[in-house]
Amino acid sequence: MKCTRCRAPAEINLRSHHSAFCRPCFILFFQRQVERTIKRDRMFTPEEHILVAVSGGKDSLALWDVLISHGYHTAGLYLDLGIGDYSAHSREKVERFAAHHNVSLHVVPLAQEAVSVPVATLFTNRVPCAACGAMKRHFFDRYALEGGFQVLATGHNLDDEAARLLGNVLHWQTEYLAREKPVLHPTHPRFVRKVRPLYRTSELETAVYAFFRGIDYVIEECPNSVGATQLFYKEMLNKIESQMPGTKLSFVQEFLRSAQRLFVAPDGSPPRECEVCGMPSFAPVCSFCKLMQEVERKREDQRSAMSGQRSAFSPVSESES
Amino acid sequence: MKCTRCRAPAEINLRSHHSAFCRPCFILFFQRQVERTIKRDRMFTPEEHILVAVSGGKDSLALWDVLISHGYHTAGLYLDLGIGDYSAHSREKVERFAAHHNVSLHVVPLAQEAVSVPVATLFTNRVPCAACGAMKRHFFDRYALEGGFQVLATGHNLDDEAARLLGNVLHWQTEYLAREKPVLHPTHPRFVRKVRPLYRTSELETAVYAFFRGIDYVIEECPNSVGATQLFYKEMLNKIESQMPGTKLSFVQEFLRSAQRLFVAPDGSPPRECEVCGMPSFAPVCSFCKLMQEVERKREDQRSAMSGQRSAFSPVSESES
Repeated sequence: MKCTRCRAPAEINLRSHHSAFCRPCFILFFQRQVERTIKRDRMFTPEEHILVAVSGGKDSLALWDVLISHGYHTAGLYLDLGIGDYSAHSREKVERFAAHHNVSLHVVPLAQEAVSVPVATLFTNRVPCAACGAMKRHFFDRYALEGGFQVLATGHNLDDEAARLLGNVLHWQTEYLAREKPVLHPTHPRFVRKVRPLYRTSELETAVYAFFRGIDYVIEECPNSVGATQLFYKEMLNKIESQMPGTKLSFVQEFLRSAQRLFVAPDGSPPRECEVCGMPSFAPVCSFCKLMQEVERKREDQRSAMSGQRSAFSPVSESES
Repeated sequence: MKCTRCRAPAEINLRSHHSAFCRPCFILFFQRQVERTIKRDRMFTPEEHILVAVSGGKDSLALWDVLISHGYHTAGLYLDLGIGDYSAHSREKVERFAAHHNVSLHVVPLAQEAVSVPVATLFTNRVPCAACGAMKRHFFDRYALEGGFQVLATGHNLDDEAARLLGNVLHWQTEYLAREKPVLHPTHPRFVRKVRPLYRTSELETAVYAFFRGIDYVIEECPNSVGATQLFYKEMLNKIESQMPGTKLSFVQEFLRSAQRLFVAPDGSPPRECEVCGMPSFAPVCSFCKLMQEVERKREDQRSAMSGQRSAFSPVSESES
């Protein structure tokens, strides 16, 4: 098999693109594809400051790598979720990547700044991914605002988008479908633009790009993702893709081109500001602050129970029940 | 496991309904479910005359059986597609069913009335299912009209609907999605109402119903369906269903409840009448008559070639090239 661009021996065959590439040509192809997506969807300009949310995985580091290569003004934001070895390893990868490229990185250790994901799960009735999601959204938004960034970029790839779309379509979640866009413009002055420059590149493509570029990323998946519905949808879509190459891309692209506009978000007032933290929120208290209050209450309960001072009929325990 | 209705030992467990049934209770459950669908979607009334398109398979015979049991005025329409043993066996099953229930059956032998599916495929460039579909639509519509029926009922089940919906959604075929309804009201005076009373009952349920009722149906699939995309989508949906019971039903129901109305068929003039057969058609000649003309031309060519009368430069062969 020969490279579609230069006829050198190919190292990667992309059935969905009817193309094969040698290493240098694939890197060029991948970077151009991301650049084209950024321009076509008007995600950001070279003048803007972009905050890249990095997890230490292949996607977010590949995205950061492309943006750095193209000379964009970027800084990284890493949330240390406090999930044992997984977080330790991924933090190490991100810090090494930032040092190697001499780019600015901001690390938020959740255990100190808020609460680690395992503790949040332990103290509340939420599943880990719900608690993690609420904290990620809060710190991404807050740091983008406080750091004076115009844009927040995340590494969601085509497989992520297609799996999310399939899940929303199987249950016809019309409100979610209305918001499923690769560029979300701010609905409040304290929000920044959110973009997904990798939404047209597959998981395989980002993995190959990261490998070809020698990016050292954390290979292990988050231990909480085992059995996640999202992974199951990805598996289904991979089966469909292998039977009908190109389906994943056309599923997402055609949705955005001809169906997305049919799903209209219900009219409503724009978000107000959370009474506790001041970030945009539809409820009086945002979901992050609600989570924190819940953890605090449960911790208080535990402390009271342990010190033996708690009465079964105290007003405090009544109001909590 | 006990029957959810009567506590007798259950013979069938329906995970998607969180129910198990003994034989008599399942028959009751199935018949009531179909009856509820007919009423809820206002498919037809007990006064109307219903033409049931029967193939000899479990779905259409199960549908006919339910309608007969409930005292509806029905007649069957069977198209003998001329597909070797498959057609011979299925015709036999349908004729036996009609004789046993003492109900009226009209048989259209395609080989005599038009052209068999294998011959149509041989003489045209169409895939068998395309030729077969065009002929089925034509004869269903024509016989419903000529027979004075108000309604044409087909045996499409939940799995058929879900597979069709998945295919249309994966490619965002918005025009098809606009027409994906269990009740299609006529858009021309020569069309009758078309309904799918089994669209909420799964393939498993119709198979079990047919078995419990002792319906003798053709088990072999049409030989042309091997490798069909529809079957692949069904397989994918079965995998999803086994992981998340109830997904198939909610996928179809929720589509009809909240998303279907978003897809609007493009405005256009209603169908006119085919210049050849007079049935409704958007083109001057309907797709059935086009198919017949194509077969006739190819047959003519063959006859000319065989009789050695054909000249390579004759005006006839030029106009055909």
